[in-house]
Amino acid sequence: MNTTKLLVIGGVAAGASFAARARRLCENAEIMIVERGPDVSFANCGLPYFVGGEIAARDVLAVQTPASLQSLLNLDVRTRCEAVRIDRANKRVEIRHLDSGSSEWQSYDKLMLAPGASPLRPAIPGIDDARILTLRNLQDMDRIAAATETAMRAVVIGAGFIGLEMTEQLRRKGLSVQLVELQPQVFPQLDAPMAALLESELHRNGVGVTLGDGVTRFESCADVVRCHLTSGKVLDADLVILSIGVKPDTEVAAQAGLQLGPRGHIVVDAFQRTSDPDIYAAGDAVETADRVLGGKTVVPMGGPANRQGRVAADHVFLGDKARPYPGSLGTAIVRVFEVSAGMTGWSEKRLQAAGQAYETVTVNDHQHATYYPDAKPLTLKILWEPGSGRLLGAQASGFEGIDKRLDVLATAILAGMTVEDLCHLELAYAPPFGSAKDAINIAGFAACNRRDGLVKHTTTLPSDPAVQVVDVRPKPLAEAFPAPGQVLNIPFPTLRANLDKLDPTRPVVTLCAFGKMSYFAARVLAQNGFDVASFSGGMKANVDPRSPGKMPTV
Amino acid sequence: MNTTKLLVIGGVAAGASFAARARRLCENAEIMIVERGPDVSFANCGLPYFVGGEIAARDVLAVQTPASLQSLLNLDVRTRCEAVRIDRANKRVEIRHLDSGSSEWQSYDKLMLAPGASPLRPAIPGIDDARILTLRNLQDMDRIAAATETAMRAVVIGAGFIGLEMTEQLRRKGLSVQLVELQPQVFPQLDAPMAALLESELHRNGVGVTLGDGVTRFESCADVVRCHLTSGKVLDADLVILSIGVKPDTEVAAQAGLQLGPRGHIVVDAFQRTSDPDIYAAGDAVETADRVLGGKTVVPMGGPANRQGRVAADHVFLGDKARPYPGSLGTAIVRVFEVSAGMTGWSEKRLQAAGQAYETVTVNDHQHATYYPDAKPLTLKILWEPGSGRLLGAQASGFEGIDKRLDVLATAILAGMTVEDLCHLELAYAPPFGSAKDAINIAGFAACNRRDGLVKHTTTLPSDPAVQVVDVRPKPLAEAFPAPGQVLNIPFPTLRANLDKLDPTRPVVTLCAFGKMSYFAARVLAQNGFDVASFSGGMKANVDPRSPGKMPTV
Repeated sequence: MNTTKLLVIGGVAAGASFAARARRLCENAEIMIVERGPDVSFANCGLPYFVGGEIAARDVLAVQTPASLQSLLNLDVRTRCEAVRIDRANKRVEIRHLDSGSSEWQSYDKLMLAPGASPLRPAIPGIDDARILTLRNLQDMDRIAAATETAMRAVVIGAGFIGLEMTEQLRRKGLSVQLVELQPQVFPQLDAPMAALLESELHRNGVGVTLGDGVTRFESCADVVRCHLTSGKVLDADLVILSIGVKPDTEVAAQAGLQLGPRGHIVVDAFQRTSDPDIYAAGDAVETADRVLGGKTVVPMGGPANRQGRVAADHVFLGDKARPYPGSLGTAIVRVFEVSAGMTGWSEKRLQAAGQAYETVTVNDHQHATYYPDAKPLTLKILWEPGSGRLLGAQASGFEGIDKRLDVLATAILAGMTVEDLCHLELAYAPPFGSAKDAINIAGFAACNRRDGLVKHTTTLPSDPAVQVVDVRPKPLAEAFPAPGQVLNIPFPTLRANLDKLDPTRPVVTLCAFGKMSYFAARVLAQNGFDVASFSGGMKANVDPRSPGKMPTV
Repeated sequence: MNTTKLLVIGGVAAGASFAARARRLCENAEIMIVERGPDVSFANCGLPYFVGGEIAARDVLAVQTPASLQSLLNLDVRTRCEAVRIDRANKRVEIRHLDSGSSEWQSYDKLMLAPGASPLRPAIPGIDDARILTLRNLQDMDRIAAATETAMRAVVIGAGFIGLEMTEQLRRKGLSVQLVELQPQVFPQLDAPMAALLESELHRNGVGVTLGDGVTRFESCADVVRCHLTSGKVLDADLVILSIGVKPDTEVAAQAGLQLGPRGHIVVDAFQRTSDPDIYAAGDAVETADRVLGGKTVVPMGGPANRQGRVAADHVFLGDKARPYPGSLGTAIVRVFEVSAGMTGWSEKRLQAAGQAYETVTVNDHQHATYYPDAKPLTLKILWEPGSGRLLGAQASGFEGIDKRLDVLATAILAGMTVEDLCHLELAYAPPFGSAKDAINIAGFAACNRRDGLVKHTTTLPSDPAVQVVDVRPKPLAEAFPAPGQVLNIPFPTLRANLDKLDPTRPVVTLCAFGKMSYFAARVLAQNGFDVASFSGGMKANVDPRSPGKMPTV
């Protein structure tokens, strides 16, 4: 394929990775990148951090330039050029030069579509106010950064990744920030209890959080944008960040008759080929295989985009000997001030919505040995398939070591591991790094105990007064931070001597701070003939340890 | 088994885990722990950190006490009691009370041996000097801590975990420290190049490091212990820490006729049963299955000990329905000042010694996106089976995120993953945590490129003058930190235009800072007909970035 011409539409994550890998595989291919914006291969995940000043130098975000791609990879990069039409019959693409307005046709042997996805900007009344901004590229970032020089009050609509990161950075910059989310929780990808610590951290940092509410219209006043919410609430802003999601930029692909999925994403095979074998696609604009349960999923993130681009380049030059893209898990993490939270695989609510059977446990632990200084709590939730025990998903929330646990669990899910396998993961342990039994091992133990029938878990405290709730925490703790409802405090060390205080004909729920003592208590009671369940995760699951006793808001 | 009596010899990691799990499984078993020392279930991995003051309160290291184990778990704990003889025929153990000197027999239905391992104290002349200390328990720790109150100069013999951790903590305490190691590198579990950064960090923190040397005798002088080394070197110390390894405490097991392995460890099956079906063993005193290549291995660490104890308890009550202990990997990590390094699975030198075929690559990267503040380099080495690509081992060295990469790779090894699988691990990415392509993905790419014949690697720079060495770094860098030997500098962006400077009939080795540009250059040259190899890892592999250009000492 000595004279192969590769035409790449979109020069950021997927497109740039495709082009770079293609060049490594073929020195003499002609490789042209056509990019709508003025920049290629920029660090889009870093944009929020420049707004808040955490990343100080703008130029570090422009990872490559057209000139550097030319000199390093012999790529012909055309910025401010937009692909407007694909002529599949003649294997050419009409390119419009955005500055001059002129057009030209570029031919291809193989075409890579990596157009990405655009921030949603729904047709809400008043949406066109120039103070309502979205964040996709360096120019958007510059506009937001400029606005923060004078703005005092920001409203961020949407509490996903971008919304949370922007909220943090705008606070860092000194603005007052109101965060609005349509779902009844922040970070809606997580199950609600696992998002509680994030929410608490937002409050702690002075962010106004409005949940279960959306914008019905924006009112453009002279000095503010007035955001009218469904609830009737009104928030005034000098700056509005709209971060309610993205839609794939697939109009050109659609016009060319390429097969699209139900939400407008380009359908590709395992080698990233579209329905036209000479056209590949990768990145935020494509559907991909779900690595947990099969079927299709959409994971608009940098990691999959880069690796999909690479797979496509391999296929151009190696054909079916290339290694396929195995699909995506949806591993994701967000940091909000001192708290981190994230997930991998399927969440409980997604499994429920899909009618998929699952089991789950939540455990509380610390990022490293508690006797070593600065041990901080973390909460880990795992989900598995009832019969096989195969892991379906995991979530983590806390202060440190969240990324590590997610990475291990993502690897375990990809490997098809079961909860039994988690028990004997042999993770790196020295007191500054972990525990002899890591939180992940503990989660495996808890899951196996449940599978073996050693303990029943409950994730909610009972409202039925027939159920006896036993708080096994020490008396001072139980009194200072009481559990809600009718609760009998029997500190665990005294439980064996006080079994006569419980009615053996009525069910029991045990509770404690972290879910460990309540499990111990449940074992004691079960072996003494009680019908007992342990309150999973305990009273401190997802509670900010810096304000002890505060119950999660969800 | 309502009247089962479990007798547990040794009450720290394995023994305490066994007893705790047994209690959860059976409320009415009689469970007695016999412990030679005055403490049970203490945090032995935390001991070094108390000596240096990093852990300030001694009581946090005594995780449980006999009284707390009684009240929480209804355990009968006998400290300062030593098992001196097992009468297997009558299922009883003779226990000597160390304080009174009296003895008694304790019967058992099931016996757990968790005697642990003692620090080696070889019969070197002068070894009995009271200033030569080892570290196993809280009393050893107290002795060392007391000695540091007046000692100015310490000599640490042995640069494994304990030796390195003690060196760090003694420096922290303000002592001058000389570290002596028989092997030609510190942390001998690692392959030598991966230990170079640790060694550099020791130097940087004022530690004297003597490698490939050992003590032949200690001379007890009035004011110092004089350590005479094989090389003739003499080191004076107010305090000597001996940390040259451990031997299993298996005399009692041996006397009882239990089967021992070649190095004196107790042989157990997958349920931790010894050759006597009523006697279990776990922890530092046992051999265990090697999870990578089969056969037997010894991993005297807290994680395996705890989990083995748990498996044994399961087997006592569940029989063969219990889940077996799957064996150990040998995952390990050490922190020395700001540097961390560790490993999982098999090292290159161990594979070589075993005559086991393997392939390996080393990559340099950072713990997170380089455009995000405080990106710090890390070096990752992976080893795999040539045919299948199955991972056999991994090592990591750097400043941050070392534990995370080891944990992911340990999980991948346990899952039987191949280097191909590493390419598409979907790890948690946001700029503070990682990169869109994590170092582990990059290691997978590099391994696959090698397997696919896309690039040849070399781990040493050629001494043969017929080989052309091309340094593709920018000219200022190549001049400031020159590579050794006869080297031609052709900065990578100019390589395609300067192919005529190279002799196509002679082999080429390309080199750069981190091993990435040299790979790019190797691809350019290979496609232009050259026989070329890339210098794996680059000039900066394991080089301390805080003293740029310093070559590794190995």
